Amino acid sequence: MPVSLTRNSARLVARLSVRPASAARTLATHAAIPLTTKSAFFKDEPKAPSLSTAVPGPRSKAISAEIDSFASNLAHTFVVDFEKSDGNYIVDADGNKMLDVFSQIASIAIGYNNPSLLALAKTDEFARATMNRPALGSYPPTTWTDWIESSLGQVRPKGVNDIFTAMCGSCSNENAFKAAFMAYRARERGDPSVTFTAEELSSCMKNQAPGSPQMSILSFGQGFHGRLFGSLSATRSKAIHKVDIPSFPWPSVPWPAVNYPLEENASANRKAEQDTLAQVEDVIDSHKRNGNPVAAVIVEPIASEGGDMHASPEFFRGLREVTKRMGVFFIVDEVQTGVGATGTFWAHEKWNLEIPPDFVVFSKKMQAAGFYHNVDTRPTIAYRNYNTWMGHPTELLKAREIIRFINEHSLVSKTATVGDKLYSALASLAAPGSPGHNKIQNLRGKGEGTFIAWDAPTVEARDRLIGKMRNEWGINMGGCGDRAVRLRPMLIFEESHADVLLYALERALAEL
Amino acid sequence: MPVSLTRNSARLVARLSVRPASAARTLATHAAIPLTTKSAFFKDEPKAPSLSTAVPGPRSKAISAEIDSFASNLAHTFVVDFEKSDGNYIVDADGNKMLDVFSQIASIAIGYNNPSLLALAKTDEFARATMNRPALGSYPPTTWTDWIESSLGQVRPKGVNDIFTAMCGSCSNENAFKAAFMAYRARERGDPSVTFTAEELSSCMKNQAPGSPQMSILSFGQGFHGRLFGSLSATRSKAIHKVDIPSFPWPSVPWPAVNYPLEENASANRKAEQDTLAQVEDVIDSHKRNGNPVAAVIVEPIASEGGDMHASPEFFRGLREVTKRMGVFFIVDEVQTGVGATGTFWAHEKWNLEIPPDFVVFSKKMQAAGFYHNVDTRPTIAYRNYNTWMGHPTELLKAREIIRFINEHSLVSKTATVGDKLYSALASLAAPGSPGHNKIQNLRGKGEGTFIAWDAPTVEARDRLIGKMRNEWGINMGGCGDRAVRLRPMLIFEESHADVLLYALERALAEL
Repeated sequence: MPVSLTRNSARLVARLSVRPASAARTLATHAAIPLTTKSAFFKDEPKAPSLSTAVPGPRSKAISAEIDSFASNLAHTFVVDFEKSDGNYIVDADGNKMLDVFSQIASIAIGYNNPSLLALAKTDEFARATMNRPALGSYPPTTWTDWIESSLGQVRPKGVNDIFTAMCGSCSNENAFKAAFMAYRARERGDPSVTFTAEELSSCMKNQAPGSPQMSILSFGQGFHGRLFGSLSATRSKAIHKVDIPSFPWPSVPWPAVNYPLEENASANRKAEQDTLAQVEDVIDSHKRNGNPVAAVIVEPIASEGGDMHASPEFFRGLREVTKRMGVFFIVDEVQTGVGATGTFWAHEKWNLEIPPDFVVFSKKMQAAGFYHNVDTRPTIAYRNYNTWMGHPTELLKAREIIRFINEHSLVSKTATVGDKLYSALASLAAPGSPGHNKIQNLRGKGEGTFIAWDAPTVEARDRLIGKMRNEWGINMGGCGDRAVRLRPMLIFEESHADVLLYALERALAEL
Repeated sequence: MPVSLTRNSARLVARLSVRPASAARTLATHAAIPLTTKSAFFKDEPKAPSLSTAVPGPRSKAISAEIDSFASNLAHTFVVDFEKSDGNYIVDADGNKMLDVFSQIASIAIGYNNPSLLALAKTDEFARATMNRPALGSYPPTTWTDWIESSLGQVRPKGVNDIFTAMCGSCSNENAFKAAFMAYRARERGDPSVTFTAEELSSCMKNQAPGSPQMSILSFGQGFHGRLFGSLSATRSKAIHKVDIPSFPWPSVPWPAVNYPLEENASANRKAEQDTLAQVEDVIDSHKRNGNPVAAVIVEPIASEGGDMHASPEFFRGLREVTKRMGVFFIVDEVQTGVGATGTFWAHEKWNLEIPPDFVVFSKKMQAAGFYHNVDTRPTIAYRNYNTWMGHPTELLKAREIIRFINEHSLVSKTATVGDKLYSALASLAAPGSPGHNKIQNLRGKGEGTFIAWDAPTVEARDRLIGKMRNEWGINMGGCGDRAVRLRPMLIFEESHADVLLYALERALAEL
C-alpha cells in the first residue's frame, strides 16, 4: 500500500534501491525492513531493528519478576542490556535490538554508550569528582567555576546569568518555587535590609501564616512539573499522578484550546490564546485580592507528559508580558524540551522574548539538573535555598561533555533538519488516502525538531500502535496525555533512522 | 592546664612519648600538635593538620568570589582541593590540611579519595552504569537485582524487605510520605479491588478534596527531614529553613524534654518521654476526628540538624507501639544517622523493636538515597509512586563498594570503639576542673559511636570554638541546632585521629 510521502517518499524510494535488503535483519513477525540505518557517530550501531522474541521476552519477564521481589515492576516496559545498547538502539535482556525513539523518557541526549562519555568516565578528573561528592553550597571544589562555565555556562539562555544546581527536574522546579516565594516576599517588604518579623519566625515553625504564607504557583492544564509535594501541586497531567496525595490549593488555567496544525488555525488559535491570557490575569488578580497571591507562573514550552500541547510564540510572549506587568515571576520548565530536541537548544528561544524568563529549569537530557535565573531571585541570607548536595559534580561533567559533543557535531541544527523532514513525512502519512489518515490526528511539532507528537483516535488505538511498533517492528516509542504518541529520539537520530521509523510506522498504521 | 582524661589521658601521654614532635607540621598560630595520626587505610594521609593561611585563605576567598558571579557563596565555609584531600583530611584551595570531622555534612563514609572507590570508578561496569542512566521504573537494567542485593540488600534493616531508590534525602522522605498516604487511603477503602471514585479523580486535578485529601505527617520539634515542600512541612529545625515558604498544616510534637546524660536522668526522662508519647497519641486522635488524619509519624533516631537531640530506646519503642496501635505508619529517617557512625549500621537497631518500622529512609553516607519498606506500602497500580529516574545506578554502585569496604574492615564496630573512647575523653574534658567545664554542656552520644555532640554556653561561644578549631588547629567541625557542636567524622576515623582532635579541643577550650 504505497503512500504519498511527497519529497520524502522520493527519498524513501531512493533508499530502497540503494540499500540491499540483505543488510537488514529478520524480524519476528514481519519481513525484513528493506532499509538500513547508518550512524555518523556509532560505528557498531545495529543497521536495523531485530527481534527474536516478543517484547518483553522471557528473560525480560524473568528479571522483572526477580525485581518484583523487592520493588514494584508494574511500570516495567522491558529490561535493558545497557552493555549491548549502542547509539540509537536499545537492546533488551532477550537480545532484541530496538530503534529507541523514547530514550529513557527523553533523557538520553547523545546515544547509548557514547564513546566520548565512556572516555570521560575513565578520567581521573571524573573519578575524583564522582567519588568525593561535596556539599557544594558550603565546600565547593576549586574547579567549580570552571566546571560550571564549561558546561551549563555554555548554554545560558539569553538574559539569565545565575545557575542553581539541584538533583532532578522535580526538585529543580521546587527550588525555583522557593526562590520565587522568597523574592516575592522580599519585594513586598521593600527595603532589602528589612528581614523577618518575630511573628513570621515563630509562626513558620508551626506551619502557620504569616511565616508560612498563603502563596501559590499558577500552572496550566496538562502541565507536568514533577511529583514531589510542591511540584505535584503544579502538575495537571493525570489523576493517577495526584490522587490521594495532599496538595496546595494552587490554581491552574486550562491550556489554550488551540487546534493543530497551529499555522492553519492561526486566527481561531489567537482568540483561544487571548482567552487563556485573560484567565491568567484574572487568576493572578483574584488570588492577590484573596490573600493567596500567585508568586510565579510555570509553563512548559510544550506540555509534554500532558500530551504534547503546543501554543504559539505570541502566546508565550503574552504570558511573559502579563507576568511582568502583574509582578509575578515567570518560570519556563524546559526539563523535557531543553537540550536541542526541538531544533533550538532551548525551546523558548523560538519565542523571541524581549524580557527573559525569571527561571529556566532543566534536567533529563542535560543529566545535570537545576535552573538558570538572575540575581534578583537570589536569596540575600545564607542557607535559605540550600541542601546538603545542591547538585552533582558527576552529572555536571556529563553535561559538559554532552554540550561539547552537541556543539562539535552541530546536533541541534541537524535535529532541526531531521525533524523537519520527519514532520513532513508524517503529515503526508496522515493525509487522505494514506495509511495514517484518521489514525494520525492533530499532528504537532512543525519546526520543533524531532519533538513531534500526534493523537491516535483512542487510547486503545494508541496503545495498540505502540505495542505493534515495539513487538513487530522493533521500535520503542512512548505515549503521553490521553491518546498521544510522542517522538523523543536522541540528538544523534539521523535521516536513515527516520526512514526506518517511517517505513515501519506506515505499515503498522496500515494494519491497524 | 592539665586535664584528667582518666584512661584516655594515660593513652594521650603514651602517644606523646612515642610520636616524635618532628613528625608534626607547623600550624599558623600554634606550636605543632605533638601527636600524629595514622590511618590503616590511607597510606599517604597527612600525619597532622597543617595550616599556612587563615581559613578561608586568599585563594579560597578568590574562588568563592568567582562563584558568586553565578551562584550564592553566602554559605561557603572554604573551597576544597578534592584532588589533594585524602582519607580523614580535607585540603583547601590554599593548601591547608584539616582533619575533617564534619565530612561534607556527614556524607562521606570511607574517606576522601578512597582507593577502592577510585578503582571502582575506572571499571567498565561503572562507566556504563554512569553514562547510560536509565528510567529505572520502566527500563531497568539486567543487572538491577544483583546491584540492589549486593548493595542496599546487604544492609536491610530487620523486618523490612522492599527497597525504593530515589535521589536525595528530601525526596526519599517525600516518596515515603506519598507511599504512606496512598497506603493509608487504600486501607480506608478496605477492599483492595476498590480504586478511586470519579469524584476523587476529578477533584484531585483541581487540588481539592476528596482526591487531594486533607492528611498529614506528624513530626517532632527540632526534626529535620528535608527542604522540599512536603519534607519542609515536616522539618522543625530552624526558622530560616522555613520562613516565606508555604507549608502544609501538618502537626508536630515537641522533642521529649530529656536531660543529658540520658542514663543519669533516666527517671525524669522517662516521664518526659511518656508525656511526649501522650501528646503524639492526642495529636493523632484529634487530627483524625478533625478530618486531617495523620498518615505517618516521622522521626530521626537522633534529631541531627536540630541540635543532636536524643531520646531513650524505650521512647522509640513506645512510639512504634503508639503508631501501630493507632494505625499510623512509622517512618524512621536515618538520612544522617544511617551507615555506621552511631556504632551500629542503623541507629534504630539499638531500639530492639519488636515490630519493625514501616519505612527506613537513607541518603548521605550511603550516597544512594531511598527507603526500605514492606509490600503493604507498595502501590498496587503502576506509575503511582514514580518518576523519570527513580534513583541512580552511579550512586548504587558507590553504595555497594562503601558497604563492602565497611564490612571488610569491620568499620561499624571500630567506630563504636573509637566513639566510646572519644565520649569518655570528652566527658573528662567537661568535668569540673577541666578546660571544658561549663564549656562542654549536655554532652550526648554515649554508646552512639562517634555521633557525639554537646552544647556550647551560647551560639557565639559555639561559633568561636568552631572558628578557633578550624583556624588555629586545622580541625573542620560543624554545628547544629542553636548552640551545639556535632562530631561527624567518617568511619575511617581512628584513635590517633581522636587523640589529635582531643588535644586541640582541650587547648582551644582552655583559651576560650
